[in-house]
Amino acid sequence: MNRKGSVSQEAEFTFTPLVVLELAKDTHKDTKEWLIQRITDKKNVGGAQLYIKPLEMDDGLKTHNMYIIGASWRRLLLGAEAVCLVKEYQDGSMRAFTYLNKEQYKEFTDDNEDFLTMAECQYIIKRELENLRAIDETMIPGYAQAKLYPGKSIFRRLQTSGILIQYFPLHNRGELKKLTLNWYGRIKPAFLPIDSIQHYFGDSIGLYFAFLEYLTVALFPIALIGMPYYLFTWEDYDKYVLFASFNLIWSTIVLEFWKRGCAKLSYKWGTLVKKRKFEEPRPGFHGKLGINPATGRKEPTYPTYKRQLRIYFVSVPFVCLCLYFSLHVMMIYFRMENWALAFHQEEQTSISAFMLYGPSILYAVVIEIMNRIYRYVAEYLTSWENHRLESSHQNHLVLKVLVFNFTNCFSSLFYIAFVLQDMKLLRQSLATLLIASQILNQVVESFLPYCLQKRRNRKVKQKFQVSRVEKELPFVQQVKLEGEMDTYLGTFDDYLELFLQFGYVSLFSCVYPLAAILAILNNITEVYSDGLKMCRVFKRPFSEPASDIGVWQLAFETMGVIAVITNCGLIGISPQARSFFENSTELVLLVVAVEHILLVLKFIVAFSIPDIPTDIRNKLFRLEFESLEALKQQQMKQAEESLPEKKKGLEERKRKSSKDFVK
Amino acid sequence: MNRKGSVSQEAEFTFTPLVVLELAKDTHKDTKEWLIQRITDKKNVGGAQLYIKPLEMDDGLKTHNMYIIGASWRRLLLGAEAVCLVKEYQDGSMRAFTYLNKEQYKEFTDDNEDFLTMAECQYIIKRELENLRAIDETMIPGYAQAKLYPGKSIFRRLQTSGILIQYFPLHNRGELKKLTLNWYGRIKPAFLPIDSIQHYFGDSIGLYFAFLEYLTVALFPIALIGMPYYLFTWEDYDKYVLFASFNLIWSTIVLEFWKRGCAKLSYKWGTLVKKRKFEEPRPGFHGKLGINPATGRKEPTYPTYKRQLRIYFVSVPFVCLCLYFSLHVMMIYFRMENWALAFHQEEQTSISAFMLYGPSILYAVVIEIMNRIYRYVAEYLTSWENHRLESSHQNHLVLKVLVFNFTNCFSSLFYIAFVLQDMKLLRQSLATLLIASQILNQVVESFLPYCLQKRRNRKVKQKFQVSRVEKELPFVQQVKLEGEMDTYLGTFDDYLELFLQFGYVSLFSCVYPLAAILAILNNITEVYSDGLKMCRVFKRPFSEPASDIGVWQLAFETMGVIAVITNCGLIGISPQARSFFENSTELVLLVVAVEHILLVLKFIVAFSIPDIPTDIRNKLFRLEFESLEALKQQQMKQAEESLPEKKKGLEERKRKSSKDFVK
Repeated sequence: MNRKGSVSQEAEFTFTPLVVLELAKDTHKDTKEWLIQRITDKKNVGGAQLYIKPLEMDDGLKTHNMYIIGASWRRLLLGAEAVCLVKEYQDGSMRAFTYLNKEQYKEFTDDNEDFLTMAECQYIIKRELENLRAIDETMIPGYAQAKLYPGKSIFRRLQTSGILIQYFPLHNRGELKKLTLNWYGRIKPAFLPIDSIQHYFGDSIGLYFAFLEYLTVALFPIALIGMPYYLFTWEDYDKYVLFASFNLIWSTIVLEFWKRGCAKLSYKWGTLVKKRKFEEPRPGFHGKLGINPATGRKEPTYPTYKRQLRIYFVSVPFVCLCLYFSLHVMMIYFRMENWALAFHQEEQTSISAFMLYGPSILYAVVIEIMNRIYRYVAEYLTSWENHRLESSHQNHLVLKVLVFNFTNCFSSLFYIAFVLQDMKLLRQSLATLLIASQILNQVVESFLPYCLQKRRNRKVKQKFQVSRVEKELPFVQQVKLEGEMDTYLGTFDDYLELFLQFGYVSLFSCVYPLAAILAILNNITEVYSDGLKMCRVFKRPFSEPASDIGVWQLAFETMGVIAVITNCGLIGISPQARSFFENSTELVLLVVAVEHILLVLKFIVAFSIPDIPTDIRNKLFRLEFESLEALKQQQMKQAEESLPEKKKGLEERKRKSSKDFVK
Repeated sequence: MNRKGSVSQEAEFTFTPLVVLELAKDTHKDTKEWLIQRITDKKNVGGAQLYIKPLEMDDGLKTHNMYIIGASWRRLLLGAEAVCLVKEYQDGSMRAFTYLNKEQYKEFTDDNEDFLTMAECQYIIKRELENLRAIDETMIPGYAQAKLYPGKSIFRRLQTSGILIQYFPLHNRGELKKLTLNWYGRIKPAFLPIDSIQHYFGDSIGLYFAFLEYLTVALFPIALIGMPYYLFTWEDYDKYVLFASFNLIWSTIVLEFWKRGCAKLSYKWGTLVKKRKFEEPRPGFHGKLGINPATGRKEPTYPTYKRQLRIYFVSVPFVCLCLYFSLHVMMIYFRMENWALAFHQEEQTSISAFMLYGPSILYAVVIEIMNRIYRYVAEYLTSWENHRLESSHQNHLVLKVLVFNFTNCFSSLFYIAFVLQDMKLLRQSLATLLIASQILNQVVESFLPYCLQKRRNRKVKQKFQVSRVEKELPFVQQVKLEGEMDTYLGTFDDYLELFLQFGYVSLFSCVYPLAAILAILNNITEVYSDGLKMCRVFKRPFSEPASDIGVWQLAFETMGVIAVITNCGLIGISPQARSFFENSTELVLLVVAVEHILLVLKFIVAFSIPDIPTDIRNKLFRLEFESLEALKQQQMKQAEESLPEKKKGLEERKRKSSKDFVK
């Protein structure tokens, strides 16, 4: 086997560098040796069986705190089987890849390196590294304080001890250039190259962009219908009711059809077939080393009831407390606003006029601080809940952050709408918030980091006297440059942005029909800025398998339900509606009735649209049927092998009690 | 093979009679011969490969319009595999039975006839008979008007042509006696012998009784808490709110935990593991003979869009029309009631006093007639929709009937509660309806048929001079007697009864807390009367596999949601609540707020209780994991067999572009 044994020995062989590992500069020699040993060790002694090689710096410093990792083609294929990668079989169906019958898969030939995408290879390596677990080590060699116990993820401990700075997948310059050209490199309107994005960045990012595109297209009808309301300033009661009703039913249909589109995509990408249930535990998961009851494999176990206790008696009360605090802060803000207004009316000076802005600015700052602290605590709490699966961890984190962000973003709007009942102020605040948040987001999220990154690039290039912009950096510098790029923290913030936007569009749609148009405009620039961000600003993220948008589907649907309630409420308190009814009780009853009817309609629509298109469902059925048939056949084989030949005649024998019945 | 070739040849061999087939008395000889041929034909020529034998009448008449059907032990085991029966494997897990490795199942020994229960054997035979399909016949021999086409179920056509009167499974007297003793044969309170019921009557009936028992036990807390309200005639506003809130949250928890209990039962019975997806098409399903995309087997196909068209453009409008009509009839009833009241107040004679009852009686009769007509049409429509699976057919039928029955039963109560706002009348009507319907149901459903059946039994016994009650009838007479018993039409009406009862208990619980106690009393007697009905009154029904209570779960949950709305409404319009608030708008807003909070709470509770207990989920995961592993191994085997030996070294080869990257 062409395997590298130790660090000191100069690597003679070459391999495609896939992942970069960066250790702390002062890492103990023992630690390095031990880690490299574990990474290169064979699978059967608990290693990852990968290639690793120090990155040779041009500057002569042989500190070796950066390593490049690769793997043999065979190792990658075996890894693909281990992580349950799904590939297209020769009969056109999607099947879990197995090494031994690799030839049966459609695009597999022995020299087709594209059978596994680079993103998939990097994902495989990541999984292997993260699943390196301590066997009998009680500590990380050289660091007595970094305790280990059997089953503990080594990489997790290295990270928490500060020894491992980061590990990240490398970009592929050629592929990236092609992708950017198709993505945001042209001006003419076109659909996103979703498949290429998935190919390069993996499923979860592919799905995010598919969802972004889908939502943008789906907003067009709402924008078109909302346009005349803005142009002709229609203020008729019944027209608003009509618009709001259309909006609500439309958003339900859109979300339901997304599920179908999403199933189609994830079937094509092989993640729909992939069994989430056999996911390995996430790297951060810890507990006693036990045996997984489903797979029979050794892995850490943690009792569910303990997790439940932590969720219900710590996390839930904490979130509730935070929500209460957030509302309290909002009330203080409105009180300050009133006070500032009163002060200005009394004084009428330029200082008092300036002070009018005080509360808003203060509130914005406080909200931002609260958001950041909360996010940090939410992440800590979710880790502490110790979820076995990455997906379940993510879902709990998303739910926590979502509820808080929703409250922070919309509570002041709700207050204006339903307590102050000032429609003009609501429309104004809504427009301000929507436009400000969209511009701010794009600047903070993409353009600012892009400029910083560009400056950084220029510096590096100057340093190495690479004068021409077009010329490629040498490999080592390229790696160092990528290592210094910011880390993309997942699709979370992108979805959150879309979610809040969806809230602005749907929650108060009957007051501000223009929101849909603004959202479309934002999303179109978002495609460009997000593309820039993904390709130029951030380190390449590891591909993450995903078959749907997870808890976000639920979040968007919940927003739809809340939207029904708020829109009905808004229509109910509008002066036009009030002028129709002399008795306000009658009005309230009518509004409540309409709300209930809309909700029922929503549920019926959601219920009657199947989540998975028929052709994909048939394919899934087929796979499941075959897998059951295979199980039966295997059982048969086992039975035949384990049993001696039986007398066949015995089976034809009549049932015992026959004679007693039939005469 | 010990197989019977034709009718004329006297059967020499014996077999356990399992199923009885009754043809019309004047059935053509050709038809009989053809049918028997098809039933006894081997599987590979499209037959059912069963034993059949005419029932020999003692009265010498050899008309042979009744046949008894059985099967060889081997045939039954093969049939068990074909219908995907699930049995306990030697390692304690539940697995789909396969004939070839039958020895690996826990209770299987070659002479253990109890491995398959009698109910299972009968189910297997039923499925085989119903799946006898026309191959090249264009008509039923002897009946030119009874057209056949390839793929048409022969038994279905025989039934619709009136040639086949019925086919039913035989009782097992000994087993039945034991079952009745454990069930309703003793007075002392005990839990139902659910497993024995399932063993004898099959899954769907077993689940019904498990649900009945579960619901009864679950009603106890509500009954206990409701007791003091009745005893002390508490009329406090806040106490009612408390009771209603408890009731609503309790009913949510109860329904959620039922899912878990149900999963436990159906795992034990093997139906949870059983794949619903590979269900064969239901006998009534017709269409062009095509190929099932999942299994690759030949079966009738029918395009989904056609079914959708029929559902949405015929069935749905029809149901809506009927609902409108039902409401219209109710309005007429209330108008007549008013008119009768006015007439009585004017006249004050005994005739006018008697006429006061007129509208109620007329309304009850009209409702009964409407129910019957509607039920008939609903069954016709659902058949016409041509659902592929029996379960989907049942669900659509249940949904149709449910909506209509709900409207008929509760619309007058809703009218009294929310339009007339007469709480006293509501309580009175509720009590009358609840008690009357319960008594009526038990009489009509069980005692009346029981008396009729008893009389019929006595007649038969007299005819054959079986004087002593204890003495068993001869087999032939026993079969004839069972053939004359009424047919049990499935658990539909039993669930409907429970559903309406659940409605009476939960919809207006804050007005009438006593309802829960009445429901418990009814359910306790229901156990006895249903037991009597199942064991003594009806023909033994065929066992039906079921892993849950299907659409009824949804129906009960929907009732829970409606209950939240009505209870909040009732509390809102109560005079106590009104006296609290001077401004009625405020009251309505508060009520709506409480309603929304309760609904949100309901959904959170439903969401946070997992539907399947952890241990069962682990077992399911294990099965699925193994089945996937088996598929992989099978693919490997195929790959190994189909491919020549490959050079192993090739796999170790380095990736193409390595040298360009690493220097």
